[in-house]
Amino acid sequence: MFRVLEVGPTGPATVSDSDDLVGPPPEGVFRWIDLQKQDDALLGLLAERFQFHPLTIEDCSHFDQRPKLEEYGEYLFLVTHGFRLTTSASEPLEVLELHSFLGERYLVTVHVEPIPALEAVWKRLQGEAALVRRGVDFVSYLVTDAIVDSFFPLLDDIAGQVEDVEDQVLGRSRKIELADIFRLKRLLVQLRKVLSPQRDVFGLLAKRGEGWIDQRTALYFRDVYDHVLRIHEWVEGTRDLLGNALDAYLWSASQRTNEIMKRLTLLSAIFLPLTFITGFWGQNFTGLPFDSNGMMVAMLVSCAIVPASMVYFFMRSKWF
Amino acid sequence: MFRVLEVGPTGPATVSDSDDLVGPPPEGVFRWIDLQKQDDALLGLLAERFQFHPLTIEDCSHFDQRPKLEEYGEYLFLVTHGFRLTTSASEPLEVLELHSFLGERYLVTVHVEPIPALEAVWKRLQGEAALVRRGVDFVSYLVTDAIVDSFFPLLDDIAGQVEDVEDQVLGRSRKIELADIFRLKRLLVQLRKVLSPQRDVFGLLAKRGEGWIDQRTALYFRDVYDHVLRIHEWVEGTRDLLGNALDAYLWSASQRTNEIMKRLTLLSAIFLPLTFITGFWGQNFTGLPFDSNGMMVAMLVSCAIVPASMVYFFMRSKWF
Amino acid sequence: MFRVLEVGPTGPATVSDSDDLVGPPPEGVFRWIDLQKQDDALLGLLAERFQFHPLTIEDCSHFDQRPKLEEYGEYLFLVTHGFRLTTSASEPLEVLELHSFLGERYLVTVHVEPIPALEAVWKRLQGEAALVRRGVDFVSYLVTDAIVDSFFPLLDDIAGQVEDVEDQVLGRSRKIELADIFRLKRLLVQLRKVLSPQRDVFGLLAKRGEGWIDQRTALYFRDVYDHVLRIHEWVEGTRDLLGNALDAYLWSASQRTNEIMKRLTLLSAIFLPLTFITGFWGQNFTGLPFDSNGMMVAMLVSCAIVPASMVYFFMRSKWF
Amino acid sequence: MFRVLEVGPTGPATVSDSDDLVGPPPEGVFRWIDLQKQDDALLGLLAERFQFHPLTIEDCSHFDQRPKLEEYGEYLFLVTHGFRLTTSASEPLEVLELHSFLGERYLVTVHVEPIPALEAVWKRLQGEAALVRRGVDFVSYLVTDAIVDSFFPLLDDIAGQVEDVEDQVLGRSRKIELADIFRLKRLLVQLRKVLSPQRDVFGLLAKRGEGWIDQRTALYFRDVYDHVLRIHEWVEGTRDLLGNALDAYLWSASQRTNEIMKRLTLLSAIFLPLTFITGFWGQNFTGLPFDSNGMMVAMLVSCAIVPASMVYFFMRSKWF
Amino acid sequence: MFRVLEVGPTGPATVSDSDDLVGPPPEGVFRWIDLQKQDDALLGLLAERFQFHPLTIEDCSHFDQRPKLEEYGEYLFLVTHGFRLTTSASEPLEVLELHSFLGERYLVTVHVEPIPALEAVWKRLQGEAALVRRGVDFVSYLVTDAIVDSFFPLLDDIAGQVEDVEDQVLGRSRKIELADIFRLKRLLVQLRKVLSPQRDVFGLLAKRGEGWIDQRTALYFRDVYDHVLRIHEWVEGTRDLLGNALDAYLWSASQRTNEIMKRLTLLSAIFLPLTFITGFWGQNFTGLPFDSNGMMVAMLVSCAIVPASMVYFFMRSKWF
Repeated sequence: MFRVLEVGPTGPATVSDSDDLVGPPPEGVFRWIDLQKQDDALLGLLAERFQFHPLTIEDCSHFDQRPKLEEYGEYLFLVTHGFRLTTSASEPLEVLELHSFLGERYLVTVHVEPIPALEAVWKRLQGEAALVRRGVDFVSYLVTDAIVDSFFPLLDDIAGQVEDVEDQVLGRSRKIELADIFRLKRLLVQLRKVLSPQRDVFGLLAKRGEGWIDQRTALYFRDVYDHVLRIHEWVEGTRDLLGNALDAYLWSASQRTNEIMKRLTLLSAIFLPLTFITGFWGQNFTGLPFDSNGMMVAMLVSCAIVPASMVYFFMRSKWF
Repeated sequence: MFRVLEVGPTGPATVSDSDDLVGPPPEGVFRWIDLQKQDDALLGLLAERFQFHPLTIEDCSHFDQRPKLEEYGEYLFLVTHGFRLTTSASEPLEVLELHSFLGERYLVTVHVEPIPALEAVWKRLQGEAALVRRGVDFVSYLVTDAIVDSFFPLLDDIAGQVEDVEDQVLGRSRKIELADIFRLKRLLVQLRKVLSPQRDVFGLLAKRGEGWIDQRTALYFRDVYDHVLRIHEWVEGTRDLLGNALDAYLWSASQRTNEIMKRLTLLSAIFLPLTFITGFWGQNFTGLPFDSNGMMVAMLVSCAIVPASMVYFFMRSKWF
Repeated sequence: MFRVLEVGPTGPATVSDSDDLVGPPPEGVFRWIDLQKQDDALLGLLAERFQFHPLTIEDCSHFDQRPKLEEYGEYLFLVTHGFRLTTSASEPLEVLELHSFLGERYLVTVHVEPIPALEAVWKRLQGEAALVRRGVDFVSYLVTDAIVDSFFPLLDDIAGQVEDVEDQVLGRSRKIELADIFRLKRLLVQLRKVLSPQRDVFGLLAKRGEGWIDQRTALYFRDVYDHVLRIHEWVEGTRDLLGNALDAYLWSASQRTNEIMKRLTLLSAIFLPLTFITGFWGQNFTGLPFDSNGMMVAMLVSCAIVPASMVYFFMRSKWF
Repeated sequence: MFRVLEVGPTGPATVSDSDDLVGPPPEGVFRWIDLQKQDDALLGLLAERFQFHPLTIEDCSHFDQRPKLEEYGEYLFLVTHGFRLTTSASEPLEVLELHSFLGERYLVTVHVEPIPALEAVWKRLQGEAALVRRGVDFVSYLVTDAIVDSFFPLLDDIAGQVEDVEDQVLGRSRKIELADIFRLKRLLVQLRKVLSPQRDVFGLLAKRGEGWIDQRTALYFRDVYDHVLRIHEWVEGTRDLLGNALDAYLWSASQRTNEIMKRLTLLSAIFLPLTFITGFWGQNFTGLPFDSNGMMVAMLVSCAIVPASMVYFFMRSKWF
Repeated sequence: MFRVLEVGPTGPATVSDSDDLVGPPPEGVFRWIDLQKQDDALLGLLAERFQFHPLTIEDCSHFDQRPKLEEYGEYLFLVTHGFRLTTSASEPLEVLELHSFLGERYLVTVHVEPIPALEAVWKRLQGEAALVRRGVDFVSYLVTDAIVDSFFPLLDDIAGQVEDVEDQVLGRSRKIELADIFRLKRLLVQLRKVLSPQRDVFGLLAKRGEGWIDQRTALYFRDVYDHVLRIHEWVEGTRDLLGNALDAYLWSASQRTNEIMKRLTLLSAIFLPLTFITGFWGQNFTGLPFDSNGMMVAMLVSCAIVPASMVYFFMRSKWF
């Protein structure tokens, strides 16, 4: 499935899904071809009409590339990653991979699943042909900017969960399982794995004069670069916090068990003298004054006083 | 809300909040326009009169930028961060973000909340017009220097708290909760997140010949750079200390529980032989000499001697 | 044992194991000599006919080199590593070392054990002489690409095992022993040890104009470089996950022991009051109402009520 | 308080504390002005006579600078740090800060507390005027070299303490408290904080042609640089060792408590069967053979045999 | 003690310990002077005859330099480190320091203790004068190569011990004490401390055109460089493994104690109901059927059944 957004020197943008438009645009025309890949048939068309390098076409057949920026004579080939949270435990982050070919007057974007951020830009540009006339590099900026900005809600979500871990350790709530912590950890590891090459890509784009990137547009990419840097630093900081939180979480789980045992041991300790007292008067020595009422009262009193004073002592020492 | 501090070739500084002064100053005049942003209305004025780049105007609408330094043809755009401690647990550090536009003879500062360090410089310059005549880059230095210097009391505060954690582990005081340690950790993570780009910014400013920074002023920025470096190293060292202190804190909490259990177990151990002795003489064997006073005395003596010698042994072994 | 694959200007590829072909090919002919080393005899032939540097010949006698790329006037000497999982605990990864001499029209590959990835390329090239005519550097690319691609199934295997560790900690399965975790750790350490020089090698090859590497082929090596980078990042991320998983694994093993002790301690606690009650009525005081049926019933009821209410309390407190 | 050491083209060195000598020396004369700062009065003199930059003068008013090297047109400004151990727990290392102004023929050193290493060089140079005639850069080398060399006894001291920690964990001695470990940790953190900028400073000085540093003297600074590198590596290695030692220390403290509890639990276990035996024969069943001497002997024998065999079993299993 | 190996344009190598030969060789002659330092007397001779720089002579008086490479006009000064295992706990690795002066036609090696690797090269060169005629840089390569190669058996030894630690944790053997782990750790820290500057030294030597190093010989040094890199990576990997192994070792020691306590607690639990049963029938209520044989049998049966079923339950739950 593909669609083409075309903007001529004047007039509004036109959208079409005609096969004929898949190819380099004529002079004075800007073209954005968005291809949601279902099979490899359309890729052949790209290869044929645009003469894209076999390596880039092959990359578009396997959607598991690192974010990268490669310069070919006629165009830039750009791989960027967006994300979507999934419910999977082993790969909690689904990568939404976007491949872009950025030529002088055309932008070809290839992806497998619909990317909401891209969709939003597509809609916006239909109404604002002027934005496209600033050049396809600016269109590419708008798309990647939208993708990077869509990370932030995700970060807030993760930050909230890390705080939940801390809250649980501090006994304020009880929402987090160990499985959730492992999932968070995996989230951060996945994020970092993608962000660090993404950072390099936008760092290159932000430098002026790379391939078909206009100097004015490079200023905008510098902005995206700054956002990626901020996310990267955020991930590093959060990993640090989560590491500590995991340690404290494990500790608090053990500590809870130990606290229970301590209380039980305190209980045992309280019964110890009672066992001795009753054991003492359970002896069969005929010499013991078993018929002395005074002794019996003393025994009864001890059975009350001794544990009571132990409880008092334990409480004063804050052992409970 | 905005205000303008203007210094002509001679005469004292004048302060005004006239709308007309928002714009590039005439020849020979230095102008510092300080804008405490409440809505985006005034930004439009800046964009119109100064022709600031749309990206920088947009940055001023979203106060969550990384510290950065961007060179535009006519001016430098500078984002720096100050701090204020808050009582929030999840973000214990409130960032006071300052955006500066530094042109040839004007400095425009934009911020949302009042920044005490900036306020102090403003007051000082009203009286010392000569300082402004050294150039607006020097004014910018004075502001950022004041902001960076305002970090140091904060560091002392944090250092004190880290020592409190250690003191608590060592049993010297009892002021710190686990929640405080998490908060300290977050403080350091936040500090580091801001300091590392801030370091880059001042590193660039300290190099001579950047945009509108005079060579003489660059020497002063080198000083600020050195301070930021020192704070950065301090944060790294403190993270290291806090990491160890957290480990030791958790350990000492567990250890306290274990110590109590050990003492209780010692107590149990002391009663064990007593239980045996009284149990022994509680048996119903007719052959046992229940009417022997000697045996009874022996029993009574054992009930005193055995636990006493156990206590003695435990104490000598330093088991208590 | 050796074999030679030769491709002339036209016609299909010929395979031979004739001794005469071990040497530089005549003009217009491409030659791939694959040598599975059994003794050092054949190396002498290489040294003599190709005039390879004594150092590279010596390297080929000791198959324990780091991945490296060395440029000699007439040829590139390349050491790359593949892997095979073994059952050994101390070195779970067997390195399949491949030494390549890449000249203008010849490629000499030397290895000790058969390398499946190389074998596959050898078979493919027998049928596609055209690929060889693109140059021996392209043949070298095909071999190293196949070797690097053969890492991916290995990574999936390791990832699965790391998840198994987490699952076990979470109590979902019970497949992993501590010995397995140590083995995984060693796997990752070995992988990293090899990948980081391998990354440097392909980084150099991906740059244009190195020795006999054609600019077109360099584009392909850039692809291999990207794969190695991805694997490297994967290994770093997995080390991180495994480190946490090991901590949690040890913790969960300890925690299991503690949980059992807690339950046993709970059991003890339930019997404590019973011991006191029966001990109390085991005393020999004549004043105690041993013939009161009411008392006896009270004793019997306590023996049921007291432990029952303790169990109830413990359960309500979620101590079990 | 200040003093001046002056060396003319010939003749011995003269020492004076005359106010007049505070200033650039006449042609052919080398001057070392050493200023032990008590108030800021003398700094004004330096600023006036040497025309030192206000920033460097300001730095000399606040003795808490990072080690740094700044080049001003006429002189180098150099901040280096020495150390002295203190008894303070929070800052176990007192920094002895030395500020140097190194001009063509003068060296001005400013410090607050007496620095023994500097004192030693001062005394030595009084007798060896020839050394001063090699240039003031060589004098500066002598001073910094003496300061860096004075680190080594400190390192030996720290190393000894780290070994003490290990010895204690291994049960060989008992000299170290947790507070000592925290103090050691702080020592290393402080050392590192100062060494890493110091390393940069000497790295710059070791490169030829920096400001007033002669090429011949640069060779000597390279030597100091090497020493700083060695100390830096030593600190890193020691931090690593201390980290492990702290872990093991905490572990061994917990383990000691656990060992005591294990022994007590063993003791309890030994008494358990005894309690059962005596409890059994304490029952009031008339059917039990209380008058059988054989049974009584059997009971007595069990009371000896059962615990004895348990002790034997525990010992054989190495549970004690 | 010194000795000189001299090789003229033709003829075999001659060995001598004549004082006269300590000095630059005449034209066409290569000289290797090996000096086993006992006192500083001979150093003066070197300084006088070769005009070595005072700094290098001073370095030779203090054998505790970092590995380094310094270029002086006439010669290279090279410090490299070999190792020897000692039985000392605090410094398990004795560094064998070798200082070399490499001139155009002479090599001067200075060391304190005999270095076996150097000895082997010395013997070999006596028979192969041709090797010396390739240049003294080649002799220097042979010596350093032999020293670096002598590291490998040491590495195998360490690797074996790290595996022993793991085996012990896994319960397979019992050879390692905590003291051994500390010693291993120190070994690795010491190795790393020396290897990282050594790596820099050989990296420089491997680059062509450094001082008196021939381009051909640089190729050989590149080989040594690769070996050092490999050792360095090995050390990093092993540190990682040892870190985990130490954690697991401490855990397993604690876990052993806990396991014993768990078993003892299980034992206690088994006796608990017995204590209750016998306690129950030890009461003095006249209403209890003490003369009922049925009751007595029930009591006896319970005393057998109850613990047996507990043991069964514990075993089924795998609590033992």
